[in-house]
Amino acid sequence: MTVNREIHLASRPEGWPTADNFRLVETEVPTPGPGQLVVRNQFMSVDPYMRGRMNDVKSYVPPFALDAPLDGGAVGEVVAGEGNGIGPGDTVLHGLGWREYALVDARGARRVDPTIAPVSAYLGVLGMTGLTAYAGLLDVAAMQPGESVFVSGAAGAVGSMVGQIAKLKGAALVVGSAGSPAKVERLRALGFDAAFDYHDGPVADQLRAAAPKGIDVYFDNVGGEHLEAAIGALRLHGRAAICGMIAQYNATEPPAAPRNLAQLIGKRLTLRGFLVGDHGHLRDQFVQEVAGWLREGRLSYDETVVDGIAAAPDAFLGLLRGDNLGKMLVRL
Amino acid sequence: MTVNREIHLASRPEGWPTADNFRLVETEVPTPGPGQLVVRNQFMSVDPYMRGRMNDVKSYVPPFALDAPLDGGAVGEVVAGEGNGIGPGDTVLHGLGWREYALVDARGARRVDPTIAPVSAYLGVLGMTGLTAYAGLLDVAAMQPGESVFVSGAAGAVGSMVGQIAKLKGAALVVGSAGSPAKVERLRALGFDAAFDYHDGPVADQLRAAAPKGIDVYFDNVGGEHLEAAIGALRLHGRAAICGMIAQYNATEPPAAPRNLAQLIGKRLTLRGFLVGDHGHLRDQFVQEVAGWLREGRLSYDETVVDGIAAAPDAFLGLLRGDNLGKMLVRL
Repeated sequence: MTVNREIHLASRPEGWPTADNFRLVETEVPTPGPGQLVVRNQFMSVDPYMRGRMNDVKSYVPPFALDAPLDGGAVGEVVAGEGNGIGPGDTVLHGLGWREYALVDARGARRVDPTIAPVSAYLGVLGMTGLTAYAGLLDVAAMQPGESVFVSGAAGAVGSMVGQIAKLKGAALVVGSAGSPAKVERLRALGFDAAFDYHDGPVADQLRAAAPKGIDVYFDNVGGEHLEAAIGALRLHGRAAICGMIAQYNATEPPAAPRNLAQLIGKRLTLRGFLVGDHGHLRDQFVQEVAGWLREGRLSYDETVVDGIAAAPDAFLGLLRGDNLGKMLVRL
Repeated sequence: MTVNREIHLASRPEGWPTADNFRLVETEVPTPGPGQLVVRNQFMSVDPYMRGRMNDVKSYVPPFALDAPLDGGAVGEVVAGEGNGIGPGDTVLHGLGWREYALVDARGARRVDPTIAPVSAYLGVLGMTGLTAYAGLLDVAAMQPGESVFVSGAAGAVGSMVGQIAKLKGAALVVGSAGSPAKVERLRALGFDAAFDYHDGPVADQLRAAAPKGIDVYFDNVGGEHLEAAIGALRLHGRAAICGMIAQYNATEPPAAPRNLAQLIGKRLTLRGFLVGDHGHLRDQFVQEVAGWLREGRLSYDETVVDGIAAAPDAFLGLLRGDNLGKMLVRL
């Protein structure tokens, strides 16, 4: 009998989570029933949205249960069971991360090709992360060639793709904000026209310096002051795709909100929240286009990898602090 | 030589305007040049958006100049001049209100038919006011039959039309908020399914009681607490058409903003600001449909009329205070 290790939610965080909110639990590797797969996870994703699921509030996905394993995107090799045309030796993407071995309904797994890209890419650039950037920028915000784009959290997994896709799709100006000098430098290397560290001064001032004529599209990963600055900079008929508000996820008081929403009227602005799950119809087009850019060396992606299931809570906490460059992953 | 009287902006209001910000000035009735009309104004409109133009800030329309006549929608009879197929005896709609006689470029005037509706209707239900309601509800918010709608400032000229049009277009539930018991009673008479006085308690609580299952569309005339409550009540894929934020127009400090914008993400909400000027393509369809409803007695509209150019500032101040039921007009 092999031991399986998984991470449980031990208690609900108040404000910033700590290591005490998590518990490493040893169980047995499960035995597959009909139509079930046992997957030895190779990589699992930690994502900002998981913070919301740690609260006991109704949302678009149910909250994580206490004293039960967390879940989230993972990729691994099938070691037992079969179903849905998938069997041992196949590499699959599925939704039961935060554990070394997952018992997966075969209908909830999708086979991926490890010869096309490293398996970790299916959690990032070729996965939900990439589709989030692609759909948010091109579908939700409907960016057009020649427009100017601002993205916050730009050195993160989603943000770095947003900026690069914007350039590939003909944006006239792409500005990114991030939280350290190293990240800002990385954004310049990725082809952003301008980048700034939001610690260096008011976001509105830095954005005005980077885009003195304003912006047409804002891709929001941060909320708060960034959103207010973006509303101020958006031009007539500008659009904001609201993907995340990481600045608020650990807030224990209602966040400072943009005080300039009245500008929505005069400038005819649109703020639209979205979830990648609504944009599955773009998946084929997305995979084809992004895989092509990767092959041609026109799109880069960063990964920050930590090792071992025991380090998964630290990886998540580091993600919330912004320790990562690009996609934060746990290698199991 | 006949005397013309007009209202000038004497000083820019700080916060709530007062009578001192206005000055009644006597001038001469102008003489028309080629292509110009002299219009004896019969009715002029006062509208909330005019408050914004009294500030010296760049916006979608230039600010009003000091020591010069204000302007705004007006309807009257041509008494001299001709052009653009318009001449003496015609009744025209134009943009030079706040004066008894206007010198109008004939290309900036539109002839209206006083036999179809009272001339004042062309400033309200059949004019910019009506089109604002129609376009905001049906185009910007894209209300569908069976949906639930909340409108703030519902006893005003725009709001009362929004609620009635929503019912005529098959809304399942229409809720309105207003600022007095008499207005709430009027909303019920107009066919609103529910109405409340926002002074009676938190907007969020009253909205929840009126629409316990939530809303799909919010038509915002007010901003602030109303917008926050609406965001909380909006269901999956809900839309807010942002028409005005009268709660903020006289604020001297940044307004309290909705603290729940993160809900845009999980519920995939859209907030869209709009100006009626972008929706002129709907004008013919709007006039045809609304005129039909009026003929059939299925649409009611209220007017609050004050008399004389000297009372125009009071009419405007009363509008900002919410003294009006329906369209606030000055009869000249």
